[in-house]
Amino acid sequence: MDKTVILHAVDELFGRELDFLVELVRHPSTRGREQSAQDFIARELGGLGYEVDRWQIDVADIAGLPGFSPVIGDYDDAVNVVGTLRSRSKRGRSLILNGHIDVVPTGPLEMWERAPFHPHIDGDWMGGRGAGDMKAGLASNLFAIEALKHLDLRPAADVFFQSVVEEECTGNGALACLQRGYRADAVLIPEPFAEKLVSSQVGVIWFQVRLKGLPTHVAYAASGANAIEAAIPLFEALHFLERRMNAQECRHHDYAGHSHALNLNIGKIEGGDWASSVPAWCVFDVRMGVFPGQSLDDMRRMIEEAIFDAASNHPFLARNRPEVVYNGFAAEGYSFKDDQSSAARAALTALDRAHSFVVGKPLEYDAITATTDARFFGLYADTPALVYGPRAEAIHGFNERVDLESVRRITQSTALFIADWCGLEEV
Amino acid sequence: MDKTVILHAVDELFGRELDFLVELVRHPSTRGREQSAQDFIARELGGLGYEVDRWQIDVADIAGLPGFSPVIGDYDDAVNVVGTLRSRSKRGRSLILNGHIDVVPTGPLEMWERAPFHPHIDGDWMGGRGAGDMKAGLASNLFAIEALKHLDLRPAADVFFQSVVEEECTGNGALACLQRGYRADAVLIPEPFAEKLVSSQVGVIWFQVRLKGLPTHVAYAASGANAIEAAIPLFEALHFLERRMNAQECRHHDYAGHSHALNLNIGKIEGGDWASSVPAWCVFDVRMGVFPGQSLDDMRRMIEEAIFDAASNHPFLARNRPEVVYNGFAAEGYSFKDDQSSAARAALTALDRAHSFVVGKPLEYDAITATTDARFFGLYADTPALVYGPRAEAIHGFNERVDLESVRRITQSTALFIADWCGLEEV
Repeated sequence: MDKTVILHAVDELFGRELDFLVELVRHPSTRGREQSAQDFIARELGGLGYEVDRWQIDVADIAGLPGFSPVIGDYDDAVNVVGTLRSRSKRGRSLILNGHIDVVPTGPLEMWERAPFHPHIDGDWMGGRGAGDMKAGLASNLFAIEALKHLDLRPAADVFFQSVVEEECTGNGALACLQRGYRADAVLIPEPFAEKLVSSQVGVIWFQVRLKGLPTHVAYAASGANAIEAAIPLFEALHFLERRMNAQECRHHDYAGHSHALNLNIGKIEGGDWASSVPAWCVFDVRMGVFPGQSLDDMRRMIEEAIFDAASNHPFLARNRPEVVYNGFAAEGYSFKDDQSSAARAALTALDRAHSFVVGKPLEYDAITATTDARFFGLYADTPALVYGPRAEAIHGFNERVDLESVRRITQSTALFIADWCGLEEV
Repeated sequence: MDKTVILHAVDELFGRELDFLVELVRHPSTRGREQSAQDFIARELGGLGYEVDRWQIDVADIAGLPGFSPVIGDYDDAVNVVGTLRSRSKRGRSLILNGHIDVVPTGPLEMWERAPFHPHIDGDWMGGRGAGDMKAGLASNLFAIEALKHLDLRPAADVFFQSVVEEECTGNGALACLQRGYRADAVLIPEPFAEKLVSSQVGVIWFQVRLKGLPTHVAYAASGANAIEAAIPLFEALHFLERRMNAQECRHHDYAGHSHALNLNIGKIEGGDWASSVPAWCVFDVRMGVFPGQSLDDMRRMIEEAIFDAASNHPFLARNRPEVVYNGFAAEGYSFKDDQSSAARAALTALDRAHSFVVGKPLEYDAITATTDARFFGLYADTPALVYGPRAEAIHGFNERVDLESVRRITQSTALFIADWCGLEEV
């Protein structure tokens, strides 16, 4: 099979791919509101000849599994979609094409130059919340297969197209796919890391700190204890821990040259009820990174130590211990680079071959400072998980956008990779 | 008239007074939810022979008046009640008995030993949100008159019983009573300041500071600007201003011995949307005191200077100036002590006489570090306003409570004061 024919097929369908992406970004699929986007995906998959599996995640099914993250709220609204494209011959190696449908909140709309869920194309870029992270990846996964079908070909092994929820807060969507029995010889996740292969990813812990104060009329403010201001020394203690954890001697080898891979983020805060009352409560939400191989329990212990030590030096908190609650991410780090299995090496070789053909340069690597769903496949299902996707900007920020020529290249590389990894059979 | 007879009449009705107070505290009359409490008051006043005036405040009617505070939301739910008890003879001096029906929020319910709107009596104390601040005062105003009526007497001048909203955030309820034409020769407001006469009260400014941040995925936290943490140097700058304003040389003479009369309170905060996104916004609400005679405009200028100076030293805020919004209190300070008018001196003499008879000791004075509605009468209607009420604890805090024997004494002093100030006529 001439590889350039496959690239041309991607080109020919690229208009349809962009239409699909525009439609997908139009669905404001923030956590808990993914259903309409998942309905759209399920409909498309059905129309394209996939067997469609659409199910609501049941926390009870996954709560005991390794990698599970404690849940925020219930999962009445958490729906996964998997489309299966069965091979007749099953001669090749099977593949999971995974992507997440959930997007992070937009923040204040007035800070966007254009409405975040009205995607717009401006030159080589498409703007919109989720355009990069990671609806472009879902589009690329789907149209890599469509390009092959356009040539009357299809993978010579089973391929599973997964559209999962919960990637941005727990990863329990990907975990639920494992629990439901989906397995393959490799996984590809086109997260937007600029056409580089993610060699390692950090782990992430989310936690919430709840502080009490002693409310009084502000007339007697000195006799009260301000719960909002009590948070400040705790922020400092947490940032001190962050600096310590990023020290050279603590780093995973793939991050040896990265001076600040583990970011601690005070991401949300709320406190007090009335300007003229000394605030009685304050709650803040934090995200902290961990290196691959680092124990989450150890990190939790250090977090609590930092908080309780700082609290013990505070006149009010010393007697009113803060509460630390773990909600959301309990995600271990994962290093694809550390996976020396023959499957991992083979998947890497195939992807490198595809990428090099499209881009004209060998595949580069990136040890990223975020997590992805790859960890589930790599750590808990013994399946090499390649994270490789297009270039995007301002993910989680205002005016998020994705580079469309990059999306085209990723789609081409993916199609070549599938042809190589799975082999091809005639439709 | 033998004064002890009046005291006994208060005693005889004290069970009814407590029943009234219990019923009043049962209405959870936080701002915007005062209607049921006002309905109850209006019904009681009607039953007791007052002419009842119940009206919805129209912002347009008061927005141009001195003392007006900018409004939070609309006033669809802001209802004042005034009961007028007309004298036939009109021989004496007229009187406004003023109290506010609004209470501050409870804060987290689990921090109360008992439900805040299920008042309970425990020995000499009645607990509940608003029991002290200031429903006991409303009860005392009403039953001081009832005690006289119990003796077949009533004031020999018109008396206006006012139950106003908005005391805790703007004072616009009291202002609306002025605008509606209610005037008298003196005002009594039984705010819970431990049976002392308020000689001076501070003014209060509320303001909100709105900060922007530069949101990014936390993976690239260093490239973002955390709007929550950006608030910290602003808190510091505001507290620095607070210390400066409390310096000896800045104090009003009635606060010369008070090292910290002007309290700055960071009372509320909210910011960020997602633990793993660098927060794009943060909003906090502040209350700051000013001395009597101090210009609110000057204080606003100093507040803005403090905020903008601090912002100019912050890498992100320097280019993204915080917004300062004035919502709620724009309250000037007021010193009854500075009012050397004959009306003020006469009112003070009458109250001192009443208090001394009941308590056995001369009236003490207190320069308080909070504001009350007294300022409207004193500053904008040339009417001496006596703030004199029972002892309470934890107002604006958890487990607020009022000393019932103190309520009894205040009711007795009030009845004696009315008899003296207004004179008496037979029913």
